[in-house]
Amino acid sequence: MEFTNCWLQYEKISDANHKDIKVYATTEGNIINNAIEELTTAFDMLYNRRVEAVFGGEPKDNENAAASSVELRLNPELKLGKEAFRIDCDSGRCVVSAQTQAGLLYGVFALIRNLRVQRVYDFDKWSFTLEQNPSNPIRMLDHWDNMDGSIERGYSGNSFFFEKDEIIINERTYAYARLAASVGINAVAINNVNVRGMATWLISDKYYDKLRSLSEIFGSYGIKLYLSINFAAPIEMGGLDTSDPCDERVKEWWKNKAKEIWQHIPEFGGFLVKADSEGRPGPFTYGRSHAEGANMLADAVRPFGGLVIWRCFVYNCQQDWRDQKTDRARAGYDNFMPLDGMFADNVILQIKNGPMDFQVREPVSPLFGGLKRTNAMLELQIAQEYTGQQRHVCYLLPWFKEILDFKTYCGREHDTVADIVAGRTYNNTNCGIVAVANTGNDINWTGHDLAAANWYGFGRLAFDTGLSAEEIASEWIMQTFGYNEKVMENVMEILMKSWPAYEKYTSPLGIGWMVKPNHHYGPDVDGYEYDRWGTYHRANHKAIGVDRTPAGTGYTQQYNEPLASIYADKRTCPQELILFFHRLEYDYVLPSGKTVIQHIYDSHFEGADEAARFLDLWRELEGLIEDEAFGRVEKRLIHQKEHAKEWRDVVNSYFYRISGIEDEKGRPLY
Amino acid sequence: MEFTNCWLQYEKISDANHKDIKVYATTEGNIINNAIEELTTAFDMLYNRRVEAVFGGEPKDNENAAASSVELRLNPELKLGKEAFRIDCDSGRCVVSAQTQAGLLYGVFALIRNLRVQRVYDFDKWSFTLEQNPSNPIRMLDHWDNMDGSIERGYSGNSFFFEKDEIIINERTYAYARLAASVGINAVAINNVNVRGMATWLISDKYYDKLRSLSEIFGSYGIKLYLSINFAAPIEMGGLDTSDPCDERVKEWWKNKAKEIWQHIPEFGGFLVKADSEGRPGPFTYGRSHAEGANMLADAVRPFGGLVIWRCFVYNCQQDWRDQKTDRARAGYDNFMPLDGMFADNVILQIKNGPMDFQVREPVSPLFGGLKRTNAMLELQIAQEYTGQQRHVCYLLPWFKEILDFKTYCGREHDTVADIVAGRTYNNTNCGIVAVANTGNDINWTGHDLAAANWYGFGRLAFDTGLSAEEIASEWIMQTFGYNEKVMENVMEILMKSWPAYEKYTSPLGIGWMVKPNHHYGPDVDGYEYDRWGTYHRANHKAIGVDRTPAGTGYTQQYNEPLASIYADKRTCPQELILFFHRLEYDYVLPSGKTVIQHIYDSHFEGADEAARFLDLWRELEGLIEDEAFGRVEKRLIHQKEHAKEWRDVVNSYFYRISGIEDEKGRPLY
Repeated sequence: MEFTNCWLQYEKISDANHKDIKVYATTEGNIINNAIEELTTAFDMLYNRRVEAVFGGEPKDNENAAASSVELRLNPELKLGKEAFRIDCDSGRCVVSAQTQAGLLYGVFALIRNLRVQRVYDFDKWSFTLEQNPSNPIRMLDHWDNMDGSIERGYSGNSFFFEKDEIIINERTYAYARLAASVGINAVAINNVNVRGMATWLISDKYYDKLRSLSEIFGSYGIKLYLSINFAAPIEMGGLDTSDPCDERVKEWWKNKAKEIWQHIPEFGGFLVKADSEGRPGPFTYGRSHAEGANMLADAVRPFGGLVIWRCFVYNCQQDWRDQKTDRARAGYDNFMPLDGMFADNVILQIKNGPMDFQVREPVSPLFGGLKRTNAMLELQIAQEYTGQQRHVCYLLPWFKEILDFKTYCGREHDTVADIVAGRTYNNTNCGIVAVANTGNDINWTGHDLAAANWYGFGRLAFDTGLSAEEIASEWIMQTFGYNEKVMENVMEILMKSWPAYEKYTSPLGIGWMVKPNHHYGPDVDGYEYDRWGTYHRANHKAIGVDRTPAGTGYTQQYNEPLASIYADKRTCPQELILFFHRLEYDYVLPSGKTVIQHIYDSHFEGADEAARFLDLWRELEGLIEDEAFGRVEKRLIHQKEHAKEWRDVVNSYFYRISGIEDEKGRPLY
Repeated sequence: MEFTNCWLQYEKISDANHKDIKVYATTEGNIINNAIEELTTAFDMLYNRRVEAVFGGEPKDNENAAASSVELRLNPELKLGKEAFRIDCDSGRCVVSAQTQAGLLYGVFALIRNLRVQRVYDFDKWSFTLEQNPSNPIRMLDHWDNMDGSIERGYSGNSFFFEKDEIIINERTYAYARLAASVGINAVAINNVNVRGMATWLISDKYYDKLRSLSEIFGSYGIKLYLSINFAAPIEMGGLDTSDPCDERVKEWWKNKAKEIWQHIPEFGGFLVKADSEGRPGPFTYGRSHAEGANMLADAVRPFGGLVIWRCFVYNCQQDWRDQKTDRARAGYDNFMPLDGMFADNVILQIKNGPMDFQVREPVSPLFGGLKRTNAMLELQIAQEYTGQQRHVCYLLPWFKEILDFKTYCGREHDTVADIVAGRTYNNTNCGIVAVANTGNDINWTGHDLAAANWYGFGRLAFDTGLSAEEIASEWIMQTFGYNEKVMENVMEILMKSWPAYEKYTSPLGIGWMVKPNHHYGPDVDGYEYDRWGTYHRANHKAIGVDRTPAGTGYTQQYNEPLASIYADKRTCPQELILFFHRLEYDYVLPSGKTVIQHIYDSHFEGADEAARFLDLWRELEGLIEDEAFGRVEKRLIHQKEHAKEWRDVVNSYFYRISGIEDEKGRPLY
C-alpha cells in the first residue's frame, strides 16, 4: 500500500540548527501523544531537530532561557471554546493552551502550518500569537463508501474503510485520521447514506470490534465516528414487521440497539439518516412525519449523548416529466418547514447547499432562512459529482464562500448561512458543516492531485469560515508543492479560475443538469429532460427555463424578503441564477447587455479557452513539481481541455440548433 | 431447471384410435434415433398411440394394409438436395425419404407439424404429399453469450451454454437443439462475437471435451457447432508477438490450431469472426486487408471442410460528431466492395440486413447488390435490441420478408436478397441466413412468450423463404396456443401489427436510433446525437436528416440503378426511408400528403394507440391461454402500452419543442 501525505508532506526549511526541542505536556493521552508525534515529525523534517518529550510539568524558570520548547498546556479553566486553542510563541518558546486535548492537537497542527506557511527559518527566533475557536461545532465528512469497497460517486479509487463486506484498518486509517484532523475535521460518517446489504448490519456484533478500533483511532485525532443507518433496520435486523417510529416495539428495538452500540463503542457519535429519499425507507411509509422518525431515534441515542443527523434531501423522484406543476426545488422546504420546532435537540437537519443537488450553481436552500427552531447543518459536496468528478480541476472554495456568506434575511442580526450553521444566529451547538468526501484509495487520495485542495479547503473553512478561498489555496499550494513563486502563481490561477471556468463551459445561468444520466459525467442537454427526476430545462425553439416566480411554481416565495422579490423579478435576479428562476426567450437581454443565447455561446467559448489555459499554466511548472504528481495532473488537464471543448460544442450546438440563432462572432457551431 | 417446450408443447388431437404405429427405419443413427423419438412423442401426445420402431427394413407387402406406419427411407440416390425431404402419406401409410439423416429429421418435424396445423383427427385416413428443399444452405443462429453467463443484448435471462467460464450441458442443451432443428436450423455459434477473457480459450484443451459433447448433441439434430474466435489469439494464446495474417508463424499457429480443434471435435463447423469492429482486433492493425485476414483462417480450416464466417460490421466507431462528411452507412460497402472476388471459397461474408445496425427500419445493405464474386450471408437479429428488447411484442417476420424480397438489380435473373443468399444468383453453396438469437435461460426461453414467434419464424423462413409472415404466424400460434379461433384471430392481429406499430411510435421515417445510449432501450432523441457512433439525425429548428444523395454523402450511389436514382430523389424515395436518405424541412409534404412534422405526430399517436390495443386483444384471451403464459404476456403488454406512450410523448415533444409547429389535431404535446 502506497499513498502520499498530501499537504503534510514536509520539506526541509532549514538545516542550520540541530539543537533539541523540548516538548512539555502536562499529561499523557491518546490525542496528546499524537500531537507530540506531529511535533516530532515536523521538527525532524522541517529543521532536522530532535524533539524531547517531558511529561508532567512545565519549563522551569531556571532552565536555559535560550532553549526552544513547545509546551502543551491543558487548561480546563481556559476561557475559550472546548476545541479552541491559543498559541503564544516568544523567541522559540511556545505555549499551546486549550481546554481539551483536541484543542491542543489543533493548536499543534496550526503551529506547524504556520511554521511552513510563514517559512520560518529560525524557530528559535520565532514569535507568534494565535487564538482560534473553530467556527463550527461540527465539521464533518460523509463518506459514501459501500461495504463491497465501491464508493457511490467516488472518483479516486475504492474505499479504504471497506472491502468485501469487512472493515479495513491499516496504515491508511491512521493517515486519513491525521490528514482530517490536521484541517480540523471532528466527525466522520464512514458508510454510504444509502444503506443496503451488509451495511445495515454494521450496527451488530459482526462489526463492533472493528468499529471500536476505528473509533479509538479516530478518537486519538479528535474525531467522532458516525454511521449511516437503515431506517428499516428493525425489520431487516430485528425481525419486526414494521419500522413505524411510533410503534413501541420499534422504539424499544432502537433503544436497545443504541445501548448495545455505545456499550461496544463508547465514543460513538451517532446516526446519519437518509429516509424517504430516492427509494430509501422512512417514516412516510407509516404515515409518520420526519420529526416523528428522527425524534424516535433521538430518544434512543440521547442517554449516550448521541446525535441524529437527518438529511433533508427528500423529493419526488418519480415525477412525470410532463407534469409542469410539481417543482423539485420546492420539495425540501415544503417537506421540512412545517416541522420547524418539532425536532428534538439532539437532531440536526442536514441541508444541501441548494434546493437541487450539488450543481455547479444553484441558489442557496431557502431552508436556511426558514428554519428558526431547528438545528441545521450545511451539506456540501467535495466529491465533484456534478463539477468534473475529480477529472476536471474545480476548486470549490470560492463557491462555498458564496454559500456561507449568503444573507438569509431571517430577521436576526447574524443572518448568513455561516452564522446559522455556526450556531451564532439561534445560539445552538448541534450544528456545523459537512462535506460529502472526495477520498479513495488512489495513491494521492483524491484521484486528481489538485482535488486535495477541496478536502484541505473544506476542513480549513469549516474550522475558520473567515478565511478567504485565496488564503486557503495559498496555504495548500505551499504545503503541497513547496515555496516556488511560479508554482504559487500558476497553481493559484488554476485553482481560482477553475470553478468559474467549469460553470462557463457547462450548463448556463444556473439552470443546472444537462449531464449524462446516471453517471453524471459529460454533456447531455436533454439527458434528464424526459426523465423522472424533476430536473427540467424545458428548452424549446423560443425559450428556456422554468418560471419559479409566483406566476410559476412559486418557489421564490420560500425566501425571505427582499430575496423573494429580488429573485422573482428578472430585472433584479442575479444573472448567474436567472435561468433557475425564470423562463426566458433566447433574445432576452441580460444585465450584462448580452442576449441569453449570446451569453451561452460566449461563456462556453471562454470557459473552454480557460480550461485549455490551465494545461499551459501547469506545463510551465514541469521540473518544479515532483515528476509523478506533475504527470498525473498533466494527464487530467489534457483530458479536461478536450472534455471542456466537448461540453462547449455540445451545449452550443444544441442551442444553436434549437434556436436557429447564429453566433454574433461567427465561431463554429455544429 | 424448468422450461417450456415453446411450439413443441403438443396437446391431444384425438384419443379415438389406440392402434400402434410402426416406424420403419433402414438404419439406426443418432439423427434417425431422434427422428423416431420425435414420432414416438408426437403420436403419444397427439393421439395416445404407441410407436413401434422396426429397424433394417421396409413394410412388407403382406403386412396388414390397414396398419398405419411411417417409413424413414434414407436414399442417397434421391434427386433432391442433401437436406431435402419428401413425404408421401397414403391413408396413414407414410414414407419420408431423404438423402441424409438430417433430411429425414426435417421430414419428420414437417410431418408432425402438418398433423398439428391441419389438425388431423384420424391419422389412418390421412393422405398428404410434401417435397421440400431448404431455401438456404446455411440456416444459423449466432448467440452472443459470454462465458460468465451473461448475454450481450440478451433479454431472456442468462446463457444456457455458459456459466462461470464453464460450458453447461444439461436437459436444456437437448431441448434447445430439438427446438432449433424442428424449424430447420443447421448451424449454431454459441459464443459472443466479441471474444474476450476465457472465451479466447474456448479453442484449447480446457474446453474440447465439453465442446465435443455439445457438437455431438447438436450433430444428432443435424446442427453444426461454430465458435466465434479472437483474431488476436496467436498473441493471447500462442505467445506470438503478432497476429499479422501474413506472418508465417501466425499462419502456422492457426493451421496447427485448426488441426487440433478438428482432432477433438470432428464435426466442428468453423469460425465466426468479428474483426476490426468496435474495438476488436483484426488485420487492419497490420496493414492487411480483410481478405488477407479471412483467407489466412480459411487456409487453416480448409483441410477439415471448415468455414470462416466473416462479419462486415466494420465502421469507424470513433467518429467526431462534428464531422459531417463521414457517413457510417457507407462503411460496409466502402470496406468490402474493393475486396470482391478476393475471398477464398470457404469464406462467407456475414452482412447485416441494413447499413447501420438492426434498426426498426433501414434500407437493405448495398453490399447484397454489390458483391458478385463473394459468398454472402444475411445477418438478421431476432434479439430485438432496437425493437423492444423482447419486452415489446415485435414480430419481425414481415420485416424479414421485405428484406428477402428486396430486388438488388444486380444484373442477374434472380436478383433479390433471398436469391443471393440462397445461392441462386451466383450458383454458390456457402451462403444462407443467420440471426442473432433471442434465447436465454428464462422459463419460456425468450422472455416474452410472443418473442418465440421470431425464433420459430426465423427458422421457418430460412428453411422456406416462400412462406409468408402470416403463414408462419398462423403455424406458430396453433402450435403454441392451440386451435381456438379467437386466439388465432387476436394473436395474429397482435403479431402482424406489432412491427408496424413499433416503427410508428419510435424513430420516424427510417432515421433510426433515438434510443437511450448503451442499453438502447427507451426514447432519447439526442441519445447518440453528440456521440462517436456515426448515428446522427442532425435535427435543428428547421429540418432533420442527413443528405445521403450525391449532393450529400453519396451513399445512394452504392446501389445499382434504378435504386440509386430512386433513393436519391426525394419524390421517388420510399416514404418510410425518406429521412434516411434526405434532409427535409418539417413542413416538407410527404407522398402521403402530410408534412414531415404532422407525420411524426400522427404516426406516434397511432403507434401508441395500437400498442394499447394489443393489451385489449390479449385480455380477451383470458381463460383461453394457459394461466402462467397469459400472465407473463399480459405483464409485458401493460409495460409496452405505457412505454409506447413514453416513446410517443418524448419524440413528439422533442419535435414540437424544436420546430415550434403545433399538432394540427391539437393533441397534447409537452
